[in-house]
Amino acid sequence: MSKFEKKQIIKKSVDPDRWYTDVILRGELADYSPVKGCMIIRPYGYELWEFIQSYLDGKFKELGVKNAYFPLFIPNGFLKREKEHVEGFSPQLAVVTVGGGEKLSEPLVVRPTSETIMYDTYSRWIQSWRDLPLLLNLWNNVVRWEKRTYLFLRTTEFLWQEGHTAHATFEDADNFARKILSIYEKFDEEVLAIPVIVGRKSESEKFPGAAITYSLESLMPDGRAIQMGTSHHLGDNFAKAFNIKYLDKNGKQQYVWQTSWAETTRVIGALIMSHGDDQGLVLPPAIAPIQVVIVPIKSEEKVLKYCRSLEKELRGAGIKIFLDDREEKTVGWKFNEWELKGVPVRIEVGVKEIEAGELTVCRRDINSKLKIQMSRLSGGQANVKSEIVNLLTDIQKNLFEKMKKFRDENTHDVSTFEEFKGIMSGKKGFIRAFWCQNKECEKRIKDETKATTRVLPLNAKKENGNCIYCAKPAQYRWLFAQAY
Amino acid sequence: MSKFEKKQIIKKSVDPDRWYTDVILRGELADYSPVKGCMIIRPYGYELWEFIQSYLDGKFKELGVKNAYFPLFIPNGFLKREKEHVEGFSPQLAVVTVGGGEKLSEPLVVRPTSETIMYDTYSRWIQSWRDLPLLLNLWNNVVRWEKRTYLFLRTTEFLWQEGHTAHATFEDADNFARKILSIYEKFDEEVLAIPVIVGRKSESEKFPGAAITYSLESLMPDGRAIQMGTSHHLGDNFAKAFNIKYLDKNGKQQYVWQTSWAETTRVIGALIMSHGDDQGLVLPPAIAPIQVVIVPIKSEEKVLKYCRSLEKELRGAGIKIFLDDREEKTVGWKFNEWELKGVPVRIEVGVKEIEAGELTVCRRDINSKLKIQMSRLSGGQANVKSEIVNLLTDIQKNLFEKMKKFRDENTHDVSTFEEFKGIMSGKKGFIRAFWCQNKECEKRIKDETKATTRVLPLNAKKENGNCIYCAKPAQYRWLFAQAY
Repeated sequence: MSKFEKKQIIKKSVDPDRWYTDVILRGELADYSPVKGCMIIRPYGYELWEFIQSYLDGKFKELGVKNAYFPLFIPNGFLKREKEHVEGFSPQLAVVTVGGGEKLSEPLVVRPTSETIMYDTYSRWIQSWRDLPLLLNLWNNVVRWEKRTYLFLRTTEFLWQEGHTAHATFEDADNFARKILSIYEKFDEEVLAIPVIVGRKSESEKFPGAAITYSLESLMPDGRAIQMGTSHHLGDNFAKAFNIKYLDKNGKQQYVWQTSWAETTRVIGALIMSHGDDQGLVLPPAIAPIQVVIVPIKSEEKVLKYCRSLEKELRGAGIKIFLDDREEKTVGWKFNEWELKGVPVRIEVGVKEIEAGELTVCRRDINSKLKIQMSRLSGGQANVKSEIVNLLTDIQKNLFEKMKKFRDENTHDVSTFEEFKGIMSGKKGFIRAFWCQNKECEKRIKDETKATTRVLPLNAKKENGNCIYCAKPAQYRWLFAQAY
Repeated sequence: MSKFEKKQIIKKSVDPDRWYTDVILRGELADYSPVKGCMIIRPYGYELWEFIQSYLDGKFKELGVKNAYFPLFIPNGFLKREKEHVEGFSPQLAVVTVGGGEKLSEPLVVRPTSETIMYDTYSRWIQSWRDLPLLLNLWNNVVRWEKRTYLFLRTTEFLWQEGHTAHATFEDADNFARKILSIYEKFDEEVLAIPVIVGRKSESEKFPGAAITYSLESLMPDGRAIQMGTSHHLGDNFAKAFNIKYLDKNGKQQYVWQTSWAETTRVIGALIMSHGDDQGLVLPPAIAPIQVVIVPIKSEEKVLKYCRSLEKELRGAGIKIFLDDREEKTVGWKFNEWELKGVPVRIEVGVKEIEAGELTVCRRDINSKLKIQMSRLSGGQANVKSEIVNLLTDIQKNLFEKMKKFRDENTHDVSTFEEFKGIMSGKKGFIRAFWCQNKECEKRIKDETKATTRVLPLNAKKENGNCIYCAKPAQYRWLFAQAY
């Protein structure tokens, strides 16, 4: 620690890019590794991932999804079976050519995603309508070679979950892909406090091999978009490539319909970027490893005893609490440390507070000091418990509302391409504009403005409009943004 | 499923090797994969791993260990820094030579274990005595190229946890390595119901780079040993290789002392082999994904209703229960299925049972039918709950005792090498014999009998004896066995 004793970070308002790196390194969420493009996730960052795992895992299991494990390696030939899939992933592969000291006769690809290795097996497991739906999920690591990497947001190796299901009909698969989308939406908005726009990707932006890619798009404070998760309807593309058939109730062979879906460690990057401020991280209570920190102002036994009883009381109410009674650190260092690490609520306890029967409470999201009344009688502490619980709920809500307000204020309905270009060369943000769904227009918009189609929102209304680029008739307003 | 509809397995008593594979494939614990030496872990097998993860993770956290993540890839040069380490692992490496379509200037090794990549970083993180102990654990996948593989027991890729700690003194490290050993011992014996002998490895059997390797050894029904887990005292070997120093309280630079420790998916192989019988798996209740299955003998509404109320009642007592009310399967198929899958207790409910106010209960471990009295009054059901809970406890205990009896009966104190050879060419088992600790004797014993030194048990007494091979003076009886 001694190297980082000061833990100064640059202000977000001064240099958001350096701020982002500073807050991750100094806040001990992650660290660079000796392997180019790969990161180390440190305990404080990994606790966020553990919570994400446990939340999503529970929701998937409620839908009847079961976890399994498939190999890290994929025989090179497997990837080639689905044409779009291999074209999409080929430039990003890490390839093992030597094993046990010998050159391999067929190179092994380190999985960039597991469709191909899994679906070969699905074709053996699935025989009859009784075997459907098959609902599996994997928690694992994948590798996609990246030229430019950012901590959490884009790394050569990353952690994720990948779900892979097989269904009897197109509609069953579509319903399931949308159910997963709802889980992600609820998680992003209610836990991460990041508002998302849910929709479907354009042909050129969809997952290689998918029929439909659904995605959740959030807007970062710098006006750029982050894709928070994807749920793909794979149609029968892979079923045909891997010959996954079932005997239906009428004794007829049918191809299955499939989905795959993923949320990754990148959402931690979005979380950091969304809520953090000049002092460091700001974590929504619903995901914070520590929700409340108690800092004794003096290390007198009287104060410490009071703090311990308060700690016990609040832990009893299910609050994730940490009493920072370390003697080798100053009060000022502790304030700085827990602000940097984004703990939602800090309680300060000194002789003054004890004598007045009060607590000094600071909320991290608006950086103001509240004073909470607290009776010295233990019977009166129920009051403190519920006040702190309410405060945490309020912080959670406030963080979401703040991001939603920002998102809404930076979502522009645009009707001329000049206006479009102006926004994208300035404050950026989301643009809603008519697009004719021609790939050529999409490409030119990207070349001229760096903005890509994010999604066609699921709730988009059919209208009569004209493509923002070519002015030909267009029926829907698509969502555009520059993206991470 | 239809392919496996019969799910016949060979008898364990007829062909234990084929039985082992049969029970894994037909019991849907795992499957072969298209990648040589790598396996697919299916949901029923993965549920065992999830339970192992959650149990051990909780125990590690009680010791203050935190989880983190380090990269899958290790730069080739890193492995070379600790001499014994690189010699030990070199023959087993998978090497990535191509990334993103280009030949890499320095090849990347797929981690066989993470000491080297982690400790390079530890040297940056650890500066002062305040940074110690550093207690981290990873849950991840590793790759060790294997010529001959067995499902679960030896696979090229496997899942595990690897803990890595750094301490201020040799003694602190040793205490910690032994604390972990106790966690593994308790887990192996109380959860997996597999008795273990705990001890330290010989010089030639220890982990490459360790000062001391502690290990837990179990005896399988075929008389061969399985190493259930290891906890290494790394001394200051890696600290010197990676320059991990701290400033002590007197302002002096000191090397740290380290431990690393692991338990892997291989214990699932030991679990299967230990308790299974001619009918299939037998799972100890403490780890069984399903502890009790209820099979309605008739699918009449009256019976089903009775079953559902029983299911609810038992679930309320914290029992993992499954009511198998599938209509497309026969009662006989269900009996066979749940025996194959090793569910500890089966409850059969038919009209007869309801009318008599009784339950027919079968315990999987001794394959006898018990009859449990059950009052029809809901008030009387507390009786059933506690009887079932007691029964599960009894099965757990019985499985352990059975294995312990077998182990003890097959542990031989041997005083001549003729006797040693006789046992190893016959029923095998554990042999306790004096050994002079000379590598040459160890090697010759192995060449002539296939038996290796397993451990010097921690509770071994100092005696005056003679080496079983060379007859030179020897002070301790070591544990020998043929090993998986």
